[in-house]
Amino acid sequence: MRKQNQLNMNGSKLKIIPLGGLEQIGMNITAFEYEDSIVVVDCGLSFPADDMLGIDLVIPDITYLTENSDKVKGFVITHGHEDHIGALPYVLKQLNVPIYATRLTMGIIENKLKEHNLTGQTKRKVVKFGQSINLGQFRIEFIKTNHSIVDAAALAIYSPAGVVIHTGDFKVDYTPVYGDAIDLQRFAELGHKGVLALMCDSTNAERPGFTQSERTLGKTFDTIFSEHKTTRIIIATFASNVDRVQQIINSAYKFDRKVVVEGRSMVSIIDTAANLGCLKIPENTLIPIEQLKNYPEEKTVIITTGSQGESMAALSRMASDIHKKISIGPNDTIIFSSNPIPGNEKAVTKVINELSRKGAEVIFQDAHVSGHACQEEIKLIYTLVRPKYAIPVHGEYKHLKAQAKLATELGIPKENVFILSSGDVLELNVEEAKVAGKVPVGDILVDGLGVGDVGNVVLRDRQHLAEDGIMIVVLALDRASGYLVSGPELVSRGFVYVRESDELMEEARELLESVIENCLSRGITDWGKIKSSIKDALGEYVWKKTKRRPMILPIILEV
Amino acid sequence: MRKQNQLNMNGSKLKIIPLGGLEQIGMNITAFEYEDSIVVVDCGLSFPADDMLGIDLVIPDITYLTENSDKVKGFVITHGHEDHIGALPYVLKQLNVPIYATRLTMGIIENKLKEHNLTGQTKRKVVKFGQSINLGQFRIEFIKTNHSIVDAAALAIYSPAGVVIHTGDFKVDYTPVYGDAIDLQRFAELGHKGVLALMCDSTNAERPGFTQSERTLGKTFDTIFSEHKTTRIIIATFASNVDRVQQIINSAYKFDRKVVVEGRSMVSIIDTAANLGCLKIPENTLIPIEQLKNYPEEKTVIITTGSQGESMAALSRMASDIHKKISIGPNDTIIFSSNPIPGNEKAVTKVINELSRKGAEVIFQDAHVSGHACQEEIKLIYTLVRPKYAIPVHGEYKHLKAQAKLATELGIPKENVFILSSGDVLELNVEEAKVAGKVPVGDILVDGLGVGDVGNVVLRDRQHLAEDGIMIVVLALDRASGYLVSGPELVSRGFVYVRESDELMEEARELLESVIENCLSRGITDWGKIKSSIKDALGEYVWKKTKRRPMILPIILEV
Repeated sequence: MRKQNQLNMNGSKLKIIPLGGLEQIGMNITAFEYEDSIVVVDCGLSFPADDMLGIDLVIPDITYLTENSDKVKGFVITHGHEDHIGALPYVLKQLNVPIYATRLTMGIIENKLKEHNLTGQTKRKVVKFGQSINLGQFRIEFIKTNHSIVDAAALAIYSPAGVVIHTGDFKVDYTPVYGDAIDLQRFAELGHKGVLALMCDSTNAERPGFTQSERTLGKTFDTIFSEHKTTRIIIATFASNVDRVQQIINSAYKFDRKVVVEGRSMVSIIDTAANLGCLKIPENTLIPIEQLKNYPEEKTVIITTGSQGESMAALSRMASDIHKKISIGPNDTIIFSSNPIPGNEKAVTKVINELSRKGAEVIFQDAHVSGHACQEEIKLIYTLVRPKYAIPVHGEYKHLKAQAKLATELGIPKENVFILSSGDVLELNVEEAKVAGKVPVGDILVDGLGVGDVGNVVLRDRQHLAEDGIMIVVLALDRASGYLVSGPELVSRGFVYVRESDELMEEARELLESVIENCLSRGITDWGKIKSSIKDALGEYVWKKTKRRPMILPIILEV
Repeated sequence: MRKQNQLNMNGSKLKIIPLGGLEQIGMNITAFEYEDSIVVVDCGLSFPADDMLGIDLVIPDITYLTENSDKVKGFVITHGHEDHIGALPYVLKQLNVPIYATRLTMGIIENKLKEHNLTGQTKRKVVKFGQSINLGQFRIEFIKTNHSIVDAAALAIYSPAGVVIHTGDFKVDYTPVYGDAIDLQRFAELGHKGVLALMCDSTNAERPGFTQSERTLGKTFDTIFSEHKTTRIIIATFASNVDRVQQIINSAYKFDRKVVVEGRSMVSIIDTAANLGCLKIPENTLIPIEQLKNYPEEKTVIITTGSQGESMAALSRMASDIHKKISIGPNDTIIFSSNPIPGNEKAVTKVINELSRKGAEVIFQDAHVSGHACQEEIKLIYTLVRPKYAIPVHGEYKHLKAQAKLATELGIPKENVFILSSGDVLELNVEEAKVAGKVPVGDILVDGLGVGDVGNVVLRDRQHLAEDGIMIVVLALDRASGYLVSGPELVSRGFVYVRESDELMEEARELLESVIENCLSRGITDWGKIKSSIKDALGEYVWKKTKRRPMILPIILEV
C-alpha cells in the first residue's frame, strides 16, 4: 500500500502503465490511471518463447490491477486479435470488470467467454465508432481504423490531465474491403484541439513507405484463379482476417467455385463474422466439407488455417497426410496468403516442402499485405495528431526505437519521446512527463489447466531434462540400522538407449554401490549427504564418459 | 551382400548415391560408384532440428560405405564449410581413407583433425585448381569457383560411363576479393566435349537475377566507416568468410583503425587463412584483444562471431553483458554482415534488441551478399555445361524443384531431370538413367561424446520430459510376502512447483496408496501389472486435474 500511495502523490497527473506489450509483439495491456479511476486498454496473451518448454500460452501479471481492483472500471479493447484479447478469460477470473469493444471484437470475445463458461458473469457493452463511454474520471471514444481484422478501433482517452490517443493496431487503408477507411478526419480534429500523448503502433516502424490496401489482393486472387482453372485451389490465411476471406469468396464466386472453410478457429470466426454481417457470402457458395466430394476439384476452393506451419492446423495435417477429409496431390494449387511470423519460418518451409513433394504447386509470394502501418502512415498520424508526447507501443525495442526516430524527425523534442518498458509508470500532464515508478509485471505461464504453477524452477528442470534426460537412483535403507536393504536401482530416461549402453550403466551401478557402501561404512546417517555423494560421483562419472549432464535424482526409501 | 550384388548387376553404369544433403541444406555427402571404385564427394554435418533435443550435431549414416569399404578410394572435398566437412572426424574413425581438397579447405580440415587427434592416421593431399587425381576407375578434376569461402572447387568426375560435373557450392563472381573468378572457360570446354550429368547447387534457385559480387561490400564498408568516424565499429560475420574479413581489414586500414578478431572459430580460421596467404593483413593492423584498451574507441574495429545470434558466440555474450573484455555502449556501431539462416531469425532479433537497448547503433541491412548462385548464374552454368542429365543438389525439396524448373526451361527433357532423395541409387550412362535402388541413409545424432547412442526412443523421452516433466513413484515390496514395506514416495521434476501444489501432490499420493493396496489385496504379484495400474491411475488423475501428461515412472524395490 505504501508504494501505491507514493505513486499517487501527484493527483493531478495521468498515469500510463503498460503491463505488457513492450519488449515484444504480444501480450498488450496498458492501464490508464487518474486519481481513483483505472481503465485498461486490451488484455492480450503472448505465445511462449522457445525456452518455455511445454507452455501453452503466456498472460500478463496483473498484480497491480488486482491490488487496485476498486479503481478498475473496465477493459477497453481495440480489436479481436489474440495479442489483445487472449488473456481476458484468465484475467476476468481474478478481476471481474466490464468489457467494452466494437461489434466483431465483442463477438470474438464472446466465443472465448463461452469456452471458459464466463458469459453469464461478465458485463459487456458493444460500442460504435464515434461513440464514447464514461469510465470513472475517463471518457473513451472509439475511432474507426483499418487493420487485418474488421472493426479495429483507435481510442481517444479523455482525462482531466489531457487526451491520449492510442492507435491500437492499425494501417491506413483508403479502400478497405469492409466498412469505412480510417477516420483521419477525427484524428485531425483531435489534433487541432490538442493531444497530450500519442501511443502509436510500432510493428512496421522500420519499414519505409505505405502498406498496401487489403483490396489489392482481390486482383491477385482473381489473377491466380484465372491462371489455375483446372486445379483445386487451397488458400491458407489467418483465421481472423475476415476481409481476406471475403475476397477469396468473391473470387470463388466469380470463377464459379464452391468454398469450403477448414480449421476450427477459421470456422468459428467466419461464423461470427457472417452472423454480424461483416462477411457477405453469396448463396450456395459455402458448402460443408462433407460435400466436397460431390464437386469436381477445379470447381472448389478450400480456405484453411495453418498458414504459419502450426503442426496441428488443418494445412499441416493435409501436408503430412493425416487430414481425414482432404488429401493433397498434383491437381492442387496451394496459396499462402500470409507471411511467416518471426520464429515460424522453418515450420512454414517444412509444410511447403511436404506439399510440393506431393506434386502440388505452392504459391508463396505476393498474396499477402500487412495489417500494420509503415513509416509514411505513422508520419501521417503524427502529423494529424500533433501530440505533445510520443509513446511508441506494440513492438520489440528495435521497433519502438524506429518509431521514436520518426517522431523526433517530425519535430517532437527528444525529451518528449518515451520508450517505456513494461511496468514503467509514466506520469504526465501538459507541463511535464516522467517515469515516476515501477509496478510489478511479468509472464504468467499457462500450461494445460495450470495458470502460473509453472515458474522458473519447473522450466529450468524441463530444460535440463530436455537437454540430457534424467538418471534416477533408488535405494532402501533400514531405518534403525542404516543398512542398505535394497538397491541401488539405476533407471534412466532420455539419457542413452540403455539396451545399447549395458557397459556404461553397469559401471555406473558398481560405482554407486561403492559410493553408498563407503557412506554407510563411515557411519553417515544424514541422507542429504548420501544423496549428494551419489549426485557428485555419478555426475562426474557420466560427464567423463559421455560429456553429458543428465539430471541425477537420488531417492532413498526408509524401510 | 545380396542387395549389393543386385545393385552391381549392370557393371557398365555409373552410380550416383547421395547419402545426405537432399531434403535439407546440410549434411552433404554423395558417393560415386563405378564397378569396384567408390569416391565420396564431401562429408558434411547438419545442425539438429528443433525436435532433436540436446543434440549437438547430426552426421550421415555411412553404412553403405562401410559395407563397401574395400571399394572406397577417398573423400574429395569441395570447400571448407561445416555442411561439407563437419562429419569427417566422425566418419574417418569408421572409414580411414585419404582426403583430397584444395589448400584452405585442407587447412580447415586439418584444424578439425587436430582436435580429434586424427592428424597422424589420416592421409591427405592438397590439390590445385586444374589438377586431377586418379582414384580407382575415377579421375577427379578440381575447377575454380567462387563462394563465401576461399578455395571452393567444382569437380569434374570422369568415369568410363561419362563425365559428371558437381558444382559444389558456388556463385559467379567476376570480381572476387581473393584469387580468380570462377573458371567458366573450363566449364565451357567440358560442355563442348560432352557432359553426362550436372549436379548443381540449388540453394538460391528460387531467387531471380544474379548474386552480387563479394567485392561490392568493400564500398559498403568504406561508406559505413566514413559515416561513423567517432564510434567504435563492431562487425559480426561468418567465421569462414575470409574475403569478408579481408575487406573489413582493408577498410580498417584505410580509416586508420586497429582490428581485433574475437570468437574462437573466427580466430582459428583467420589464423589458418593468413598462414596460407589467403588473407593479407597490413602490418600493425591486427592487435590482440588485450590491447584494445590502449586505443581510442573510434580507432578500433572488432570482427566477431555471433552473426546468427548463437547464444554462446562472442557477440551474444557482449549483448548480454557476459563478455569478459568488451562491453557495449552508445559509442558502438554494430554491423551484421550476414543474413539469418532460416530458423535463427528470433535469436538474431533478440541480440539486435539487446544491443540497441544499450544505446548502440545496429546496422542490419545491405552489408551482406550471398555465396550461392541465383537463377541467372544457374542458367549460365547449364548453358555452358549442356549436360544430358540434370541432378539438382544442395537444397530442400522446394529448392531442388525450382532448379528442375530452370533446367527444363533450358531445354533439358523432363525425364532427364532427377530430383533425388538421399539414399536413391541413380544408375546412368549415356543411353539411360534411372533410380535403380535404395541404400540405407539416416541421421546419426551426436550428443557430447556419444555418436549414435541417442536414437528415437531417447529423443521421444526427452520431448516427453520437456513437455510436461516426470513423476516418479517409488515403493518397496517384501520379496516373500508381497507386502508394501515402504512408500509410495512421489517425486516430480518439471511438472509443477511442488511447494505450491501441496494439495495436488497429497491427493495423488493418497490415490497411489489405494491403487497399490488394491493390487496387493487382490494378490497381484506381477510387478508389471502393479506398475501399469500406477501409471494408468496417476496419469488419469493428473490429466483430469491439470490437462498435462507428465512421464510417469513407477519403480519397485524388492526388500
